[in-house]
Amino acid sequence: MPTRNESAAALLDGIRSFIEPAQVRTDPDSCLNYGRDWTRLYTPDPLAVVLPSNIEQIQQLVRYANEHRLALVPSGGRTGLSGAAVAHHGEIVVSMERMNRILEFDPTGRSVTCQAGVVTEALQNFARDHGLYYPVDFASRGSSQIGGNIATNAGGIKVVRHGLTRDWVTGLKVVTGRGDLLDLNRGLIKNASGYDLRHLFVGSEGTLGIIVEATLKLTRPLREPSVMVLGVPDLDGVMSLYHVFRNKLELSAFEFFSELALRHVLKKGVQRPFDAETPYYVLIEFENPDESHTDQALALFEHCAEQGWLADGVISQSETQAKELWRLREDISESISEHQPYKNDIAVRISRVPALLAEIDELLAREYPDFEVLWYGHIGDGNLHVNILKPTGLDSATFAQKCGAVSEHLFAVLQRHGGSISAEHGVGLTKKPYLHYTRDETEIGYLRAIKQVFDPNGIMNPGKIFD
Amino acid sequence: MPTRNESAAALLDGIRSFIEPAQVRTDPDSCLNYGRDWTRLYTPDPLAVVLPSNIEQIQQLVRYANEHRLALVPSGGRTGLSGAAVAHHGEIVVSMERMNRILEFDPTGRSVTCQAGVVTEALQNFARDHGLYYPVDFASRGSSQIGGNIATNAGGIKVVRHGLTRDWVTGLKVVTGRGDLLDLNRGLIKNASGYDLRHLFVGSEGTLGIIVEATLKLTRPLREPSVMVLGVPDLDGVMSLYHVFRNKLELSAFEFFSELALRHVLKKGVQRPFDAETPYYVLIEFENPDESHTDQALALFEHCAEQGWLADGVISQSETQAKELWRLREDISESISEHQPYKNDIAVRISRVPALLAEIDELLAREYPDFEVLWYGHIGDGNLHVNILKPTGLDSATFAQKCGAVSEHLFAVLQRHGGSISAEHGVGLTKKPYLHYTRDETEIGYLRAIKQVFDPNGIMNPGKIFD
Repeated sequence: MPTRNESAAALLDGIRSFIEPAQVRTDPDSCLNYGRDWTRLYTPDPLAVVLPSNIEQIQQLVRYANEHRLALVPSGGRTGLSGAAVAHHGEIVVSMERMNRILEFDPTGRSVTCQAGVVTEALQNFARDHGLYYPVDFASRGSSQIGGNIATNAGGIKVVRHGLTRDWVTGLKVVTGRGDLLDLNRGLIKNASGYDLRHLFVGSEGTLGIIVEATLKLTRPLREPSVMVLGVPDLDGVMSLYHVFRNKLELSAFEFFSELALRHVLKKGVQRPFDAETPYYVLIEFENPDESHTDQALALFEHCAEQGWLADGVISQSETQAKELWRLREDISESISEHQPYKNDIAVRISRVPALLAEIDELLAREYPDFEVLWYGHIGDGNLHVNILKPTGLDSATFAQKCGAVSEHLFAVLQRHGGSISAEHGVGLTKKPYLHYTRDETEIGYLRAIKQVFDPNGIMNPGKIFD
Repeated sequence: MPTRNESAAALLDGIRSFIEPAQVRTDPDSCLNYGRDWTRLYTPDPLAVVLPSNIEQIQQLVRYANEHRLALVPSGGRTGLSGAAVAHHGEIVVSMERMNRILEFDPTGRSVTCQAGVVTEALQNFARDHGLYYPVDFASRGSSQIGGNIATNAGGIKVVRHGLTRDWVTGLKVVTGRGDLLDLNRGLIKNASGYDLRHLFVGSEGTLGIIVEATLKLTRPLREPSVMVLGVPDLDGVMSLYHVFRNKLELSAFEFFSELALRHVLKKGVQRPFDAETPYYVLIEFENPDESHTDQALALFEHCAEQGWLADGVISQSETQAKELWRLREDISESISEHQPYKNDIAVRISRVPALLAEIDELLAREYPDFEVLWYGHIGDGNLHVNILKPTGLDSATFAQKCGAVSEHLFAVLQRHGGSISAEHGVGLTKKPYLHYTRDETEIGYLRAIKQVFDPNGIMNPGKIFD
């Protein structure tokens, strides 16, 4: 951890010599807002919030931080769920929000180069306006930023077909913790010229440097996707549906959620999709140009119903209906936020999902008998979100402590199944104590050594991922 | 570079204490065959060839090599074109050919785990036998190995749709240059738990450690692909065809080659695809189940012919015809091998291809007026193979020297266009002098530092990629 011997005021004056003074903020509102992400477990306490407008300012800031041993927290849309963008120890938040321009578009190569502060939805809209599609998508699209998506390798709801953020990054400009500007891979599809540093920065959570620009691939839009929601009696049925539908249709999403999760969305005024109540639901999206695959989908539905794998279902007849059905899944996270859920975001190989679910179900029923546990997630990626709601009246600290204690058991189960303690939310602060369940001590030793290469003074987002 | 103070015999006896003596070979035939790849520029001179049968032996070997400062050259099918698998300075070749078993298959997760020595075609056949498809494909499929494919991030003829080897690796077991066994990512689709070391090993050309096992995704087979070959008057036409066909059909390949390249294949007895001779040809492959897209393809053909972008063409009517058409492109490399071609394998962003081609064409006509220069490659990936044939009578050394001199000019042009000196062949020995045209000195400094993390004694494939 960096230490400081100079007065805060003098340090900030130094920064104001190369960044516009108005963009070096210390007011309480800025410190509160820019000092936190979507976790609410930490008390924001940055020294200042700095909003650079160009790469040179960022390089100057990183060099200055090295000289004065100041800690920097790179900051995007702050929609993360692991505390990776939290500044709670007098760090300087480096907000990328002023660097939000799309710089270049290549229609033949289907790619776009943009600054790190571009909001996900702005990029999606830009692509759509040019007849193309940026398929990395998730509920926080309206405020998350491309740089943050890359720093956490964001996944979301289209991974089963389109992969993670990593799969769309063909170029990355980064300022390392040493202050060097690296122009990595420069938008090339093929480049076999030594170790690919780009992929080290994807998922590095701001601990190696600051992502300042990215070149991203785009693809053609989905062709008239249809959405089905199916009511499923048990988790084995969910897996059977995945196997059958994935083999016969070109799926762009395969999501699941529990009845308990659905009820929170219904409370917000969304309609139940059909009369039957089942413990689980599956949402399937597939391309269906000119309704050419509707018959196939209905035949699969009949087959699965005969097998007892589903109890009821509905298929969208229009884009509006498709959007309504998506809300059943997409609105879960927001609908439960008032209950301050303790979130686990775990992943295993798909073949391990049923065994893992059975073991965790048993564990949670034993350990959390009084807590409401909600399941949802991306079965097609082996990714499950386990949300435990805070009971009214229980104080946050006790709740967090109880949940943390059970996490140890949960992650021990996960470890036996070769899983990951964080599928797509990152490690940050919340999952740091559990990293060793997924990466062994030898591996973590290599992670530390790589951090040392890019950030020898430990100024970049210290205390995140590992100490 | 490691140095040795002990006698070779004593060193090899030491290795024979943990690897079966018959698998530690020093006979001239083994040294010759295992000491080289498909380049023929270097005189093989390994100390020995070692063929381990399990991971423990490899770990023991790496630890032994560290103690005695022995250099190790990991060795797959040795089909590489950059000399990365060459042992010409008394190294120990570590052949993976005895570790060639498929270990696990997961039909629901569509993935397979195999040892590094599995031959590409064996994996492709395994996938096909299970109704699936491993889409990384190239002419040397019959002898290249999965470990080597990963170590070079092999590309090939299906990248435009299916990406590179990197995109299919979900897990990697490696023995690092320190002798540690790392079990990286373990087949997970999603895993946001710190830096992804897996991607450092992809494309590392044996310089960080030895890849011993991999988990690879599989996908569904292509649905009745059709192949078109089109005769194109100029390179602008090639680009126009790419734009038009890619927007309307789901392409699985978009290859190009020159008339000069085609003639070498025709000499081997393959039929010319149609009467017209044009300077360039394009091969397009697209899914065409029940010939549902034939009309679309023919309409595009008509449109492009009207625009003057193509002069003639043919579409396959059967799988056999499709295979015959593929030979026109796939057989080029083998048909010219007797001319000891000097190979350049370059890449730029697709939008830069026309400008780059024009400049290089002019450069080569000026600098190589007496040499036969053949073009072919993967336009959809911005990847061009430039092959210069050795004139009969010119000695190899003079030829190589002349070609190397022009490479400096060629790579200077490439650098201005932000390109790569090696798209898919790797750096190895042949491209090492030119690495700085693609990676700047700052970046190369980071590459060296990362090498130091994984291989502090420099025993892993020393002298490859950089010194």
